Amino acid sequence: MSHLRWGIIGCGQISFDFVQAMRKCVHPHMIVAIAASNWEKAKNLKQVLCLGEGVTVYGSYEELLANANVEVVYIGLVNHVHHDIVIKALNRDKHVLCEKPLGLNVRQVHGMVQKSRQKKLFLMEGFHSRFFPCWNQIRTDLENKTLGELTSIHANIGSDYFSENRFHTPDGAKPIDSGSTPLMDFGLYTINFALWIFKDEMPQKIIAYGRKDETGADKFANITLEFSKGKKAFLLYSAEDIMPNSAFISCTDGHLLIPEFFHCPTRLIRVRGKQKVGENSAEGIEFPLEDDAFYIYNNSSGLRYEADHVFECLRKGRKESDLMSLETTEKLAEIIQEIRRQLDIVLPQDKQTNHDST
Amino acid sequence: MSHLRWGIIGCGQISFDFVQAMRKCVHPHMIVAIAASNWEKAKNLKQVLCLGEGVTVYGSYEELLANANVEVVYIGLVNHVHHDIVIKALNRDKHVLCEKPLGLNVRQVHGMVQKSRQKKLFLMEGFHSRFFPCWNQIRTDLENKTLGELTSIHANIGSDYFSENRFHTPDGAKPIDSGSTPLMDFGLYTINFALWIFKDEMPQKIIAYGRKDETGADKFANITLEFSKGKKAFLLYSAEDIMPNSAFISCTDGHLLIPEFFHCPTRLIRVRGKQKVGENSAEGIEFPLEDDAFYIYNNSSGLRYEADHVFECLRKGRKESDLMSLETTEKLAEIIQEIRRQLDIVLPQDKQTNHDST
Repeated sequence: MSHLRWGIIGCGQISFDFVQAMRKCVHPHMIVAIAASNWEKAKNLKQVLCLGEGVTVYGSYEELLANANVEVVYIGLVNHVHHDIVIKALNRDKHVLCEKPLGLNVRQVHGMVQKSRQKKLFLMEGFHSRFFPCWNQIRTDLENKTLGELTSIHANIGSDYFSENRFHTPDGAKPIDSGSTPLMDFGLYTINFALWIFKDEMPQKIIAYGRKDETGADKFANITLEFSKGKKAFLLYSAEDIMPNSAFISCTDGHLLIPEFFHCPTRLIRVRGKQKVGENSAEGIEFPLEDDAFYIYNNSSGLRYEADHVFECLRKGRKESDLMSLETTEKLAEIIQEIRRQLDIVLPQDKQTNHDST
Repeated sequence: MSHLRWGIIGCGQISFDFVQAMRKCVHPHMIVAIAASNWEKAKNLKQVLCLGEGVTVYGSYEELLANANVEVVYIGLVNHVHHDIVIKALNRDKHVLCEKPLGLNVRQVHGMVQKSRQKKLFLMEGFHSRFFPCWNQIRTDLENKTLGELTSIHANIGSDYFSENRFHTPDGAKPIDSGSTPLMDFGLYTINFALWIFKDEMPQKIIAYGRKDETGADKFANITLEFSKGKKAFLLYSAEDIMPNSAFISCTDGHLLIPEFFHCPTRLIRVRGKQKVGENSAEGIEFPLEDDAFYIYNNSSGLRYEADHVFECLRKGRKESDLMSLETTEKLAEIIQEIRRQLDIVLPQDKQTNHDST
């Protein structure tokens, strides 16, 4: 099949990882253009990634969107600008893969979904987790009932996020202004995991307890989601605690364990038995990424699976993914908004209207 | 030092394990008598454990308590009779080690603590976890700040408790009538772990979300405890989900992991680093029990550490343990009662008065 022609919007850390990972793709991808908020930044990404002559460098996103040779854009910008750029890209007839979270609230997400459907263009939220081979194995185990019936899951994710001073912006803007709160930045990986495990069923009950900091952003939350037939997800995220980033999946005849990086895993442990010493058997299964290139984020080489999935969708003429559907993205946004409501986390964008969605 | 002369009250599964484990003690213990609700049951325990001629068998607890040669009693009965037997034992001038939970509510616990102080007798709740070498290593790591400052913990415990029909009593009594709810039977291990980690500091905030079954007993709960200086415990128990029974301890420079059976562990994993692939180092430390005898419960051989601790306390003339103090037992009872209040779990004993404490 013909090359998929990408435009990269945003030249920060995640875009670096995404382009790096594309080298390991199985399908033919071609980077046509990259754009940052200034030309130097885009030029720099092109250089450090040793991209070829054919890649055009832009100092504004709009210029890239005007390039008729760009077929699909990857948006790797900070959270609060996703909405406007996605709308602009769709208006320029580009297919879109946008980093998570697609929008900051239900209204923003709904506006983008409507726009993509109206324009008959492909749109997908970039949850790379759903395409990792380890997650595929979990799905197979659950469908084959390898360990019996699924009953519940737990996932945790935590880091010393604040101490990294990651969001000390020069203009003194607070993380919450850019929608970069712990929930919106990484806590949502646990929600995506839960929704994926329960096949995008909407939880019947959402209970969140957490704390805010002095800027109004969340610090941590302990979340219970209840699904049909008494099934549950127990989720935990924290910006002030280093956690294993592990997950387990409880089944009637044992449990599956992702010992670390459940959102981008390379290892699964299958434990048969009912937690009695000497009666369990544990079996580890490895899913090596086989990539010795440098990445900024953990296991970002797995972004290749996401890029290849977008390739397959587009070459099949699909307007959305079956593995990360727009309905799923809307449900995620609803759950996250309800958690924010319970934690009393209000973003400036919650008060705006979508005057620019049209 | 002279032998410690034990009377065993209750000849069920946990008493079997306790007596079995005593064979591995380092101090000289002597079992003087065992008693069950009927003589046959006590005789049977004596036989299966091949206890010597010197062990007197009783068909009632009162008879054992009348034996002047018994110095300390181990109480391994079902939860709801702990209070009455402990009071009777203290009134008979016996020191007491009673299985957890010591009482079903704050009032019961307070009555027993008062009685033991008034009688100047030793009383301890049997949380064997606190004496496992693995827990000692965790304490050492935390005091030495091996991985920096402690910030939070997580612990989970879960089994298919209900499907075992464990509490289908012949007279049709419900588990809740005997105080044998999941929280009172095993969920409390997570509370004990949190309280131990935070050196018996009372949490400033207790938040529990869970569900009840049709009998009024709890099925599961997801609990957050907040301690001073922003430290937290995230605790999870379930009677309808098989879980790894794992725990982790988040510190500023890494985390400690108990991969299974955090309440009776034989393995600790020390992970230095901040959860970045390739920058962590994991080190496993084993604490083998070195005991090939048969036990009913997981790692019950560790009950030997508890028995030896009681020996040390009594031979030093102590009236309570420094590692599992009566103040700790009262705090545990308060936290559990508050969790029950939030979950709306009411025990019949909550409506009674302590007319029999005196």
